[in-house]
Amino acid sequence: MAYEYKVVRTIEFSETDMGGIVHFSNYCKFVETVERQFFKSIGYSIVTSQTDPPVGWPRVRIGFDYKKPLSFEDEIEIHLLVAKLRSKSITYRIHIRKLTGDTGELAATGEMTVVCVSWIESSKMKACSIPKEIAAKIEVAPAGLIKG
Amino acid sequence: MAYEYKVVRTIEFSETDMGGIVHFSNYCKFVETVERQFFKSIGYSIVTSQTDPPVGWPRVRIGFDYKKPLSFEDEIEIHLLVAKLRSKSITYRIHIRKLTGDTGELAATGEMTVVCVSWIESSKMKACSIPKEIAAKIEVAPAGLIKG
Amino acid sequence: MAYEYKVVRTIEFSETDMGGIVHFSNYCKFVETVERQFFKSIGYSIVTSQTDPPVGWPRVRIGFDYKKPLSFEDEIEIHLLVAKLRSKSITYRIHIRKLTGDTGELAATGEMTVVCVSWIESSKMKACSIPKEIAAKIEVAPAGLIKG
Amino acid sequence: MAYEYKVVRTIEFSETDMGGIVHFSNYCKFVETVERQFFKSIGYSIVTSQTDPPVGWPRVRIGFDYKKPLSFEDEIEIHLLVAKLRSKSITYRIHIRKLTGDTGELAATGEMTVVCVSWIESSKMKACSIPKEIAAKIEVAPAGLIKG
Repeated sequence: MAYEYKVVRTIEFSETDMGGIVHFSNYCKFVETVERQFFKSIGYSIVTSQTDPPVGWPRVRIGFDYKKPLSFEDEIEIHLLVAKLRSKSITYRIHIRKLTGDTGELAATGEMTVVCVSWIESSKMKACSIPKEIAAKIEVAPAGLIKG
Repeated sequence: MAYEYKVVRTIEFSETDMGGIVHFSNYCKFVETVERQFFKSIGYSIVTSQTDPPVGWPRVRIGFDYKKPLSFEDEIEIHLLVAKLRSKSITYRIHIRKLTGDTGELAATGEMTVVCVSWIESSKMKACSIPKEIAAKIEVAPAGLIKG
Repeated sequence: MAYEYKVVRTIEFSETDMGGIVHFSNYCKFVETVERQFFKSIGYSIVTSQTDPPVGWPRVRIGFDYKKPLSFEDEIEIHLLVAKLRSKSITYRIHIRKLTGDTGELAATGEMTVVCVSWIESSKMKACSIPKEIAAKIEVAPAGLIKG
Repeated sequence: MAYEYKVVRTIEFSETDMGGIVHFSNYCKFVETVERQFFKSIGYSIVTSQTDPPVGWPRVRIGFDYKKPLSFEDEIEIHLLVAKLRSKSITYRIHIRKLTGDTGELAATGEMTVVCVSWIESSKMKACSIPKEIAAKIEVAPAGLIKG
């Protein structure tokens, strides 16, 4: 049973803006990176074609609290935790820590809710139950970890 | 006194992902576009060098509820409303409507809080009061409009 | 017969980097914007589903010469010209001019070659002839204009 | 003496477009990632503040030939080679190979020329000689490797 995943990566030049810090839109991509690897860690792709029917995970809610700016070449840890597990949706809690020259305090926290969908015809999505084989591998993280 | 701004634009190919819809990170950029033009409408740049001291507006909180997907070449309206006006921060409410082939229902709602900062030395930011000449031009939008 | 299109737009904050200028990757998006509107001007989408078979226009070559940096809130003109028209491909010449506080000199030039493709099964692309109804509406621009 | 660097990474969902393949603008970011790590391998940052004067490396030319599309979760190798070393500029040759399910053939090739600049006052860049301590650590790659 998995409830978390951590990715460590370095801030790229293209992720900064003229303010000299990471543009706030990139935190969405940070979350996507760790979500992809969390799914990989339980044996699935987030483009989940192995299940019947194939499913996808569009976002229905995202939010970030930006606490400290991130800069070029900062090494960061993106920590994903399963905060809620419903029949058709998952809510992740995200903790972003700056590892470079820092005591490991939180640079940002976030939350993302994704809904499990299948497709009607080729282009219309419909919410559906999370496939049993995936739900069986995920659990909600301990409250203390989610709180951060 | 200004409390809102609307921008209409078309979804670009580069804003879509392999799911065939607009990638959720782009909504952050939608908000930035309308914020820039809101400031321009009151005579300022969001890179606010005309005030003494010069100020900037880093984001401290962002959130979106994604209600309906957006697609390539959709025409969208991004509607910014001033939801809260504090001494050192502004909270904007965002309504994104899909105008193409639609009844104008909300595709997404969002909220962004920015804090007014000046710089200590060249690279360290510090929260400061919103310059009076800017505060004098902005007011909170009527509650009915914010609600959407 | 169409051979050019011009788009005027303003540089967004998210398009800058910590160097204080527009990140070079964004010029690819500038070209895509003007290509989309060029196609629209002749009655087509670049997601060309109106033809039989439906076709797409993946890039096979792109190149830019960056002559002068672009900055936040610069107003720029993106000028697309048809430089070559082959049976299965189109090469566009791109001139990017900074209109803000400038004499209209070139900020960058570029060239993009796209190939016309249809799909074998659902995911494999194959080069094909440009649909006659589209080829009939496009011509190569005068050499003097292409040169800039 | 260094003349090359290789980075292996996985394609993210946000890098794809509705065509189901990697958007062509992202190849610029691939190059930037390997350039950053090449500089790090010789002991420098591309935000080169350790030299006197501090220098930067804006791009003056970029070009790509896209040979095979890249897809979500493809593992790719980005291979940078020093192709030309002038007094004030460096030209890199780039080979991008798809490692996933492939024989290692080239997915794309590219070339990027950067010029070494220092700053006059705080915002105006001027081309300058590559600092000796950096030039002393870089050499042109063997022709056979550059050719690919």
